[in-house]
Amino acid sequence: MARRNDHSREEIQAMAIEAAIDILNNEGPGSLSTRKVAKAIGYTVGTLYLVFKNLDELILQVNATTLDELEDGIVAVSQDQLNPVSTLKAMALAYLHYAQDNFARWSLLFTWRLPEGEPVPEWFDAKVAGVFEKVREPLQQLRPDSDAQTCLQAAREIWSGVHGACDLGLNGKLSFGGEFKPDTLIESLVENYLIGFAKA
Amino acid sequence: MARRNDHSREEIQAMAIEAAIDILNNEGPGSLSTRKVAKAIGYTVGTLYLVFKNLDELILQVNATTLDELEDGIVAVSQDQLNPVSTLKAMALAYLHYAQDNFARWSLLFTWRLPEGEPVPEWFDAKVAGVFEKVREPLQQLRPDSDAQTCLQAAREIWSGVHGACDLGLNGKLSFGGEFKPDTLIESLVENYLIGFAKA
Repeated sequence: MARRNDHSREEIQAMAIEAAIDILNNEGPGSLSTRKVAKAIGYTVGTLYLVFKNLDELILQVNATTLDELEDGIVAVSQDQLNPVSTLKAMALAYLHYAQDNFARWSLLFTWRLPEGEPVPEWFDAKVAGVFEKVREPLQQLRPDSDAQTCLQAAREIWSGVHGACDLGLNGKLSFGGEFKPDTLIESLVENYLIGFAKA
Repeated sequence: MARRNDHSREEIQAMAIEAAIDILNNEGPGSLSTRKVAKAIGYTVGTLYLVFKNLDELILQVNATTLDELEDGIVAVSQDQLNPVSTLKAMALAYLHYAQDNFARWSLLFTWRLPEGEPVPEWFDAKVAGVFEKVREPLQQLRPDSDAQTCLQAAREIWSGVHGACDLGLNGKLSFGGEFKPDTLIESLVENYLIGFAKA
């Protein structure tokens, strides 16, 4: 067991985020509690509440690392692509693979809600906007004369489709009335969408 | 309070399904229990277990009525459309509106899972296939030379996109890093997708 003075406030925060990620990875969505996180880092729940206002603030930080990794993932696969269409298809599949490999954390990003009336902090919103900016770039290449807002909307539309296929596929709902694989659907969905988007 | 002999087995089943729908409508997703349903129809939980094997069997019946209503909704709006593209856009928006108006029941269709290893009954699978068949028809009109399987896959792709936009929009996640309305995204997503699908 570590003693209270062993770590700085920042160190305890970082340890708690890492422990929360481990708990999610090992125990699945819905498994997170301050008690478990405190136990995992060898501090009391009281200490955890000294460095995070509440569980929501800790989850916000966990979700921020998820967004960072998602962004890294889609940027990494976009490096060696020959054209915007193959870039966007590779990004979409990278999103699926991230969701498959990190199901609990990916789910937490979408199931978690701040308490009623509490706004999402600006820095978090900016982080989300940063990820969409990465998707906007190849869309802008496809339609150089379009304004940024049109391409940002297209990024949302593609994301909705890819996210929907991930969500249904990973929750076993694509097999409803037939068998379809999310990667097959995602590739074809993005391909058809982009033909329309490029010609509009 | 009704006495046990007042209703037939089929009547108790129908009353329980109706009561479950009321509870979901009034109390939201995650609100359903056999205790609440039994109380609402004036029978004991024991009686409920005489007409349904378990809560899952009751939920399956509730989900079946949700599928029926969804199918009715998309068929109704497809009657007066001039072409397959407007039919499919109207169907997509009808899906969104159904999800908005019946959020708890629509959510239950996707969050509910049968216990591990228990297969979805064939009659339920057939019902899902019936809904997709309604989406396949206008797709087949768009590409008369394609086989049914290609059009069924396209139906899944469109559904993934529409479902994703509904899910993100109704759960407040489309506002992540900007403001987008699900109906705007859905119309444009379907429109662009169909340009690609029709030309492939």
